[in-house]
Amino acid sequence: MEKVREIVREGRRVGKEDPRRVVHAFKVGLALALVSSFYYYQPLYDNFGVNAMWAVMTVVVVFEFSVGATLGKGINRAVATLVAGGLGIGAHHLASLSGPTIEPILLAIFVFVQAALSTFVRFFPRVKARYDYGILIFILTFSLISVSGFREDEILDLAHKRLSTVIMGGVSCVLISIFVCPVWAGQDLHSLIASNLDTLSHFLQEFVEEYFEATDDGDIKEVEKRRKNLERYKSVLNSKSNEETLANFARWEPRHGQFRFRHPWQQYLAVAALLRQCTYRIDALNSYLKSDFQIPMDIKKKLEESLRRMSSESGKSLKEMSISLKKMTKSSSADIHVLNSQCACKTLSTLLKSGILNDVEPLQLISLTTTVSLLIDIVNLTEKISESVHELASAARFKNKMKPTASLKKSDSVSIGRAAVPIKSHDSDDHVVTILCDADVSNTVDQSRGETSVDSCHHVAIKIDDDDLVHEKHEVGEIHAHSCVSCDPSDVLDSSNKRISSSN
Amino acid sequence: MEKVREIVREGRRVGKEDPRRVVHAFKVGLALALVSSFYYYQPLYDNFGVNAMWAVMTVVVVFEFSVGATLGKGINRAVATLVAGGLGIGAHHLASLSGPTIEPILLAIFVFVQAALSTFVRFFPRVKARYDYGILIFILTFSLISVSGFREDEILDLAHKRLSTVIMGGVSCVLISIFVCPVWAGQDLHSLIASNLDTLSHFLQEFVEEYFEATDDGDIKEVEKRRKNLERYKSVLNSKSNEETLANFARWEPRHGQFRFRHPWQQYLAVAALLRQCTYRIDALNSYLKSDFQIPMDIKKKLEESLRRMSSESGKSLKEMSISLKKMTKSSSADIHVLNSQCACKTLSTLLKSGILNDVEPLQLISLTTTVSLLIDIVNLTEKISESVHELASAARFKNKMKPTASLKKSDSVSIGRAAVPIKSHDSDDHVVTILCDADVSNTVDQSRGETSVDSCHHVAIKIDDDDLVHEKHEVGEIHAHSCVSCDPSDVLDSSNKRISSSN
Repeated sequence: MEKVREIVREGRRVGKEDPRRVVHAFKVGLALALVSSFYYYQPLYDNFGVNAMWAVMTVVVVFEFSVGATLGKGINRAVATLVAGGLGIGAHHLASLSGPTIEPILLAIFVFVQAALSTFVRFFPRVKARYDYGILIFILTFSLISVSGFREDEILDLAHKRLSTVIMGGVSCVLISIFVCPVWAGQDLHSLIASNLDTLSHFLQEFVEEYFEATDDGDIKEVEKRRKNLERYKSVLNSKSNEETLANFARWEPRHGQFRFRHPWQQYLAVAALLRQCTYRIDALNSYLKSDFQIPMDIKKKLEESLRRMSSESGKSLKEMSISLKKMTKSSSADIHVLNSQCACKTLSTLLKSGILNDVEPLQLISLTTTVSLLIDIVNLTEKISESVHELASAARFKNKMKPTASLKKSDSVSIGRAAVPIKSHDSDDHVVTILCDADVSNTVDQSRGETSVDSCHHVAIKIDDDDLVHEKHEVGEIHAHSCVSCDPSDVLDSSNKRISSSN
Repeated sequence: MEKVREIVREGRRVGKEDPRRVVHAFKVGLALALVSSFYYYQPLYDNFGVNAMWAVMTVVVVFEFSVGATLGKGINRAVATLVAGGLGIGAHHLASLSGPTIEPILLAIFVFVQAALSTFVRFFPRVKARYDYGILIFILTFSLISVSGFREDEILDLAHKRLSTVIMGGVSCVLISIFVCPVWAGQDLHSLIASNLDTLSHFLQEFVEEYFEATDDGDIKEVEKRRKNLERYKSVLNSKSNEETLANFARWEPRHGQFRFRHPWQQYLAVAALLRQCTYRIDALNSYLKSDFQIPMDIKKKLEESLRRMSSESGKSLKEMSISLKKMTKSSSADIHVLNSQCACKTLSTLLKSGILNDVEPLQLISLTTTVSLLIDIVNLTEKISESVHELASAARFKNKMKPTASLKKSDSVSIGRAAVPIKSHDSDDHVVTILCDADVSNTVDQSRGETSVDSCHHVAIKIDDDDLVHEKHEVGEIHAHSCVSCDPSDVLDSSNKRISSSN
């Protein structure tokens, strides 16, 4: 009884996790009930006889969760049945010419050679990814037809009936799968990447809050809950095989929604790979957050502002990417945050150069600088991710909401105050985004707390106008290219940039 | 023509990568040729008729690369056919009681409900991992039998014949798969983990060589080659799904070689998870190696000895674990290296405390300390891995080559010279292993290069005698427990230990 209740609970959980699973179960039931009518409906049965069972079998085996998987299997099965049927008949004909004694021996040899060769080909990585099922069916059909043909005379008729029932079963699957609450693997992959971006963004935005929070602040349960919430990023660590499977399925899918037939699914995998690389750094960062060896808050505070901005601006840029991916629009709003985070990097490095940490105890220094270093890595990876998302947007021809003409000018105007306030405004003509960006504060910085002083900053003007005509050009990347110039990145940034790029 | 040559080349590569694939292809061919003899051999054909095709189908679908996968599928198929056959006959009987008009409607409802329920159950993670195929066959057989029974009167005979042919096909597969050059998933998993240990060990041992190598030393090709060789660790990053699949298959396998039926396959996954975590750190470390921003060698040299020892001793300990795993023996030789690497950690932290890096430029400091910090992480993870491997050795009842009684004594003898030389000797009674271990060198260390000076060291005596009787007790862990005491680990070590352990 307890067991049954547990199963029901598990069932509810599984259904709640993705309600489409329940719908899928009903769809399979429907398809099977439909196809089994072949047996009840006299004219059909008269036509196909026992072969109607191939339709049932096809439905059971071919009907998968997503349209792509179903289509892939269906097409694999149909083509493999056709080809193997033809070859099987050929083999049977060839064998029958040789007389009744040699015939079974010849057939056995054919079956052996065909099975061995096909099985070996299944090990080819590219074949395995897309045509594994087709080759399985090829072996099956060839063996059945060439061998059973030894007994049955009407072999052509058999092959014909088998093929038509397989196609009927397959077509029912595909139709039901496409027209009754379809589950698109492509859409799933798209959402998965967007949600992964979101997850990492969440971590980066929350991380600093946790890092600069006094460790012994009352409610332990609350802290535990927040930390657990932070660790949602762990799902990204091992998402590779899932993503690859989805991408493989997605390739079979026809145009749906805003996804074309040849949507650049491979580019999603490229973004995902960078995201995973970023997650490795985040995993290391998280281990420092949880360390019992905490650095005194007053030492952390020295770098607080820069670290806060690096982390939260990277987080924001990932968030913007996630949003623009979800909306399927090209957008440069993420770039501004990338820029900001890079500027914060720059500020940090000048701060460090100024010797702000000279009086810190070595062991605390190690822990602190490792956090810094990992965050710099993450900032640079964020830029890579942003570039990759732009490439995806171009390749997938996302709508072009804003087309910045990327007239980045390095002015020499000096402004007071450290905080860079990106002034964003969407959906209107001719924006000018002004980014206040610290540079070369090494000598002016306040040694004691790194608080405000007069910084030399640069105005970065980004002229944006809504011109949808030229949307194939990779405009946003240009801002990028200049962003480094405008921020005058330090050795740290430069070197880590190169380091990251070469590690891809 | 070019295409054909390319395919042949690919085939050769695939075959070379794992020659068992070629053997497997031949085995499948053999099994199929054997089973298709059902059709040629008159007595068998008279008995089973067209149903003989189920044997062919079973072979094609069930015969997998490893014994575990084949057995799993075979058992799944046989049990599912049996159960679904029984239920199908029941459903058919129930429907036939209701008269000819309602019968098809009732049958359609049965099929629908059964298919929908079973399909939903396939989403349960635990079911999906082990019984997915069984449920597929359940749906198939139930539908076929209950529906086709509508036409055929001898339904019991049909079910019986189908079951016997399925079993015949399955048994041929299983027998051929076990007795002709068997491929054991368990053995593969075992080797995979051992080879992953080896890969990481290789990285750690080579890493320091690269790190302390002058960057501009002539032959770029040679350097490229070495670096590429270093990056073999990348395969470990994404091995999770592969390992889980192998573990799932391995559970179906009977006793083979030194693997019992209930070998602790889950523990392999635990070791693998730790290895992956270590690899994330290694990935970060590797990115620093490739960085164009190199720290001047004279600064690096200050920490060279400790870093060298940390990295190479961790590497050696992983190597020892890999060897003892391969040989399936319990061995404590890895612990000595773990100890050594921890002592090096300790030396390093005292070195750092002494202010050896005070005059280093901040940006160089960041890069250097990050390397240090990641290496400390790796040293601590190595200890975790070592513990996990010991647990595995206990759970899997590996042979007990050396049973140390773990009498760790902290003597006060002082010895000259920094290098810790573990004196190991295998396979003889009563060893005494002396580990020379730096501790508290903070005040005696040479500031300029950290070179030799009189260090206070501890003798760690491990009494070892060959007593195989008590091999269930987790003796080696005891050395571990004491190792920390003997090394008097610093805050750094302590805290990172806790950090690592809490992040699992």
